[in-house]
Amino acid sequence: MPLTARIDLIVPFHDLDPMEICWHGNYVRYFELARVALLQRIDYDYPEMRTSGYAWPVIELFIRYAHPLTYQQRLHIDASLVEWENRLKIAYEIRDAASQKRLTRGHTVQVAFDMRANEMCFVSPDVLLEKLQGHI
Amino acid sequence: MPLTARIDLIVPFHDLDPMEICWHGNYVRYFELARVALLQRIDYDYPEMRTSGYAWPVIELFIRYAHPLTYQQRLHIDASLVEWENRLKIAYEIRDAASQKRLTRGHTVQVAFDMRANEMCFVSPDVLLEKLQGHI
Amino acid sequence: MPLTARIDLIVPFHDLDPMEICWHGNYVRYFELARVALLQRIDYDYPEMRTSGYAWPVIELFIRYAHPLTYQQRLHIDASLVEWENRLKIAYEIRDAASQKRLTRGHTVQVAFDMRANEMCFVSPDVLLEKLQGHI
Amino acid sequence: MPLTARIDLIVPFHDLDPMEICWHGNYVRYFELARVALLQRIDYDYPEMRTSGYAWPVIELFIRYAHPLTYQQRLHIDASLVEWENRLKIAYEIRDAASQKRLTRGHTVQVAFDMRANEMCFVSPDVLLEKLQGHI
Repeated sequence: MPLTARIDLIVPFHDLDPMEICWHGNYVRYFELARVALLQRIDYDYPEMRTSGYAWPVIELFIRYAHPLTYQQRLHIDASLVEWENRLKIAYEIRDAASQKRLTRGHTVQVAFDMRANEMCFVSPDVLLEKLQGHI
Repeated sequence: MPLTARIDLIVPFHDLDPMEICWHGNYVRYFELARVALLQRIDYDYPEMRTSGYAWPVIELFIRYAHPLTYQQRLHIDASLVEWENRLKIAYEIRDAASQKRLTRGHTVQVAFDMRANEMCFVSPDVLLEKLQGHI
Repeated sequence: MPLTARIDLIVPFHDLDPMEICWHGNYVRYFELARVALLQRIDYDYPEMRTSGYAWPVIELFIRYAHPLTYQQRLHIDASLVEWENRLKIAYEIRDAASQKRLTRGHTVQVAFDMRANEMCFVSPDVLLEKLQGHI
Repeated sequence: MPLTARIDLIVPFHDLDPMEICWHGNYVRYFELARVALLQRIDYDYPEMRTSGYAWPVIELFIRYAHPLTYQQRLHIDASLVEWENRLKIAYEIRDAASQKRLTRGHTVQVAFDMRANEMCFVSPDVLLEKLQGHI
């Protein structure tokens, strides 16, 4: 049973471009909001990462835009944990809240960076696995 | 000989996150600046697209972050035309201006949307091929 | 009795700067979210403005930052209609949701722009006054 | 003779709103780019502020939008030091690069925050006055 989180979002005016659709770069913020909701479920959001001695930079981003997002459209954004042993891979889906039609999908990959040793980790540190216990 | 364009950019303060590196979503703006420089070389930037009757929404975005970008770092951002017959695929590289070390790579894919017919095009319209003549 | 609207907001990670507080430019988006909530109460948000033949560009912005906003802080953002006869002036307050301490105040001024005549209006058009009937 | 700095900027696509003009919140980034150019002239940009033990949060922002900014418009953005003894007040003007017509004006106010004492300063610290020597 995968770890997931869903957030609700309404497309704001300041995210629209001249075609009156959401400018494609703004989706990265939407994904982040869903990712944070997922990480809060395991008590491992940015402040806890910092306390644990690890940063988790995003090293890969992929977005497949199937349908545009329009002004005041109500969205569901789902984040699902896909990989965690060596890196943190999270998949995303944006759906129209009313019809549940899938509008966008994508993923991000993060890796642990040991802030004391100042080096990338090729295996996820124990703290992530401890946080995940009981959730996956 | 591929069609390419290069822009110079200095990482601004407002693009930094709490780790004092460029927040990963801001790269989408950097790519766009380089893409626009490339499209201006063939006289087919946003205003000319609109006049031609086609919108070119981004349908895919990929970014591979190899090294972080830091405050006031001078960057070269290169855009290269990779595909054009059925869709517009542009590849990007971000390099440190001083060392020419590659820091980031990625790509975007756009497809033509016929604004009169209100439908996606599965083949790039003639206007793109005409604009590209003499450049590829 | 003034026309007001309140929105709830949680400070997201992508709005933080290297001091780990909300970068000051992001407040403009927060004000806009509250302004839209207020304009929706009188059924005169962006789509209705457009249909009415008027754009309402912001011609003045003022923000007084009293206390910083921190990660995941829960906020109340209040918008209040202050002037409407010749221009649309809206005042804003950002409060900590838990303590109700006021953290920020500010205002925006917008004027009607007649899109058919292509000129600024020195008096608010009838459509605004009609929309406001029963609300002020 | 006031301390000033000028930057050049071209309005990018991602800063446009559905009216095809620059969304009003993006001007805050433009002001910051000019402010940083000014602060670099006295060798007191963000990294030097940090080293000096002071943060300089923006406590007030004012913008008066006289004319819209349009796609690919070339701009000059001027920052001028107005006050420094008790607070850092900087005035801004945005001009069309070709005609030198003034399009926008505004200001920001910053105050020193002593990071060791964890308190606001009601007088600018000596380090600012030293940096300004020979410039004003």
